[in-house]
Amino acid sequence: MNVQTPVSMPPLLSVSRRARRTPFSDGVEAAGVKAYTVYNHMLLPTVFRSVVEDYHHLKSAVQLWDVAVERQVEVRGPDAGRLMQMLTPRDLRGMLPGQCFYLPMVDETGGMLNDPVGVKLAEDRYWISIADSDLLFWVKGIAYGFRLDVLVEEPDVSPLAVQGPKADALMARVFGDAVQEIKFFRYGWFEFQGRYLVVARSGYSKQGGFEIYVEGSDLGMPLWNALMEAGRDLDIHAGCPNLIERVEGGLLSYGNDMTRANTPHECGLGKFCSVQTAIGCVGRDALLRVSQEGPIRQIRAIAIDGDLPGCDRVWPLKAGDTVVGQVTSAAKSPDFDTNVAIGMVRMTHWDAGTALTVETQAGAFGAEVQPKFWI
Amino acid sequence: MNVQTPVSMPPLLSVSRRARRTPFSDGVEAAGVKAYTVYNHMLLPTVFRSVVEDYHHLKSAVQLWDVAVERQVEVRGPDAGRLMQMLTPRDLRGMLPGQCFYLPMVDETGGMLNDPVGVKLAEDRYWISIADSDLLFWVKGIAYGFRLDVLVEEPDVSPLAVQGPKADALMARVFGDAVQEIKFFRYGWFEFQGRYLVVARSGYSKQGGFEIYVEGSDLGMPLWNALMEAGRDLDIHAGCPNLIERVEGGLLSYGNDMTRANTPHECGLGKFCSVQTAIGCVGRDALLRVSQEGPIRQIRAIAIDGDLPGCDRVWPLKAGDTVVGQVTSAAKSPDFDTNVAIGMVRMTHWDAGTALTVETQAGAFGAEVQPKFWI
Repeated sequence: MNVQTPVSMPPLLSVSRRARRTPFSDGVEAAGVKAYTVYNHMLLPTVFRSVVEDYHHLKSAVQLWDVAVERQVEVRGPDAGRLMQMLTPRDLRGMLPGQCFYLPMVDETGGMLNDPVGVKLAEDRYWISIADSDLLFWVKGIAYGFRLDVLVEEPDVSPLAVQGPKADALMARVFGDAVQEIKFFRYGWFEFQGRYLVVARSGYSKQGGFEIYVEGSDLGMPLWNALMEAGRDLDIHAGCPNLIERVEGGLLSYGNDMTRANTPHECGLGKFCSVQTAIGCVGRDALLRVSQEGPIRQIRAIAIDGDLPGCDRVWPLKAGDTVVGQVTSAAKSPDFDTNVAIGMVRMTHWDAGTALTVETQAGAFGAEVQPKFWI
Repeated sequence: MNVQTPVSMPPLLSVSRRARRTPFSDGVEAAGVKAYTVYNHMLLPTVFRSVVEDYHHLKSAVQLWDVAVERQVEVRGPDAGRLMQMLTPRDLRGMLPGQCFYLPMVDETGGMLNDPVGVKLAEDRYWISIADSDLLFWVKGIAYGFRLDVLVEEPDVSPLAVQGPKADALMARVFGDAVQEIKFFRYGWFEFQGRYLVVARSGYSKQGGFEIYVEGSDLGMPLWNALMEAGRDLDIHAGCPNLIERVEGGLLSYGNDMTRANTPHECGLGKFCSVQTAIGCVGRDALLRVSQEGPIRQIRAIAIDGDLPGCDRVWPLKAGDTVVGQVTSAAKSPDFDTNVAIGMVRMTHWDAGTALTVETQAGAFGAEVQPKFWI
């Protein structure tokens, strides 16, 4: 059954100091931001021209993203390495300065607390570039409880992302050709206005690009303006993580597609877990069994038919009358001519091709489990 | 200098599952909510008719507030009392089941992590009704680090507030006359549809009223509808924490008026701290000195002249060219014919009557330190 509902306007967002502005907010406003979400108590742009227009542009040109909401948890001191390994089931023994690691972080029950990127600055110094939860509180609590010799703080560091197929060309103009030699999930130190910044090849899209860890809020707008100016003939535009593109690419969103109720293995992140060797990880005991036997539900790409409403709540996935999973992100894809979606499905129904029904606030729609994400 | 700027439309808020709906969202939408903020990863209504209309109505009638964003951290087990005292510099030895305590919570440096209301359910069971930060992560970290025998969880409990001068009349109709005998910051167990709920005399306004801790999301809309129905002739309306009213009353907002950078004493919360006797509080050592000598900056009521923009960022307070404090919340008050504001001011300039200048995104305005808040 397809119940048609009118597309309603999104609600308004009241401003306050608590939903913090970023060092790039002036640039974001000048570029005509149309909507935000709040992420780590800070404003995250979600739409500039339109979600669809932003999507096509991201895949063809280059965009500047204010992702200052990726706040950093800095861990520094003699016990920094020990503390980092306590936080994640990924084995960090091989991690070197210059590397970024995607790090599922779990509590003592193996539940996901965040899925940040860890940046190893030195043997005794890391940044944890976080998704939407106050991971700082957990890290501080563990450090204090175990009396570790570390400082744990939120430094004045705000990532600015350059994403899209023309990202290399743009970055070379501002930081020099050497920036193009940075490998995926590696970083280097690059100079801007006499200060050295961490520039990593990473970002929350599948279109390629960089994240610049802007240390010092005063540098925010000068760098934003320099990149905008340098990219004019590359059709540069302000952008933001794009819902359609990220779902097509299977990029999970903490708080949307996974929560503390999920293990990394359920989220398809088992490949980042080395539970046998991640000695010291507080969730190790809880994850040992699931790492051997595998989870009983897991993230899957889901295609959905019809005119969907916005996915503003958990949508149950059903086989007949039985709930066998849920959809937590969905968007109409222009390139793939279907609604692309991210779901969590029980093993009894997770095989590719399984036909299911998804229940939304606008009625039920047909859905099918896909063999993989779209890009 | 007063630079006049046009009042711009607030931005749009993009919806997603991450900004969680509440058990009362259907009622909030039916009542015509106009704007939201995001608070504890959940939707918090901010405007129904208009901020000014909501303000007048709150002071004269009765409102139903969806404050499900006040998530609970449940602490349960033999070490629950010990853990609670580790979290706060308030002396909890005298706290009894049936009582609610306003509890500044601090880290090991004495910095504010949250300012929740603690609800003592039993000797070994508490709810912590939190402001906007993931306090759960800190509580879990401390509990794990100290190997305490406690369970720490976010239960399915969503507060619904009934606020305004007619709150007692309304509540008696739904819960019986005995509800009117609840004393301030005490609670009782009251029955609704065969289930017993914690009903406390508390709330984030100065107009009086109750907070109902709705245990079980399924009970949300039945209770919302029952209260709306019972209050029809009392001019009941959906409402929300009102910016003007809370600033008039000096009700602080975590993330706006205080952050981890502040001690409770700076926030004027010294009266809730008994640092000498709060043995076990992790911030005790850090707070001992400030508790004896007093802070060097403190929260003050500030009156401001002119047509202010929205306070969406920290506004520096200046004496001549010297920054002597900051304003973090402000609103035009119809009842007091001035802009009411909350600021943090250095002791050199915090005396009542001190004339200062406040710098906003729309220029500078005259300001004066007040002897106390307005109500």
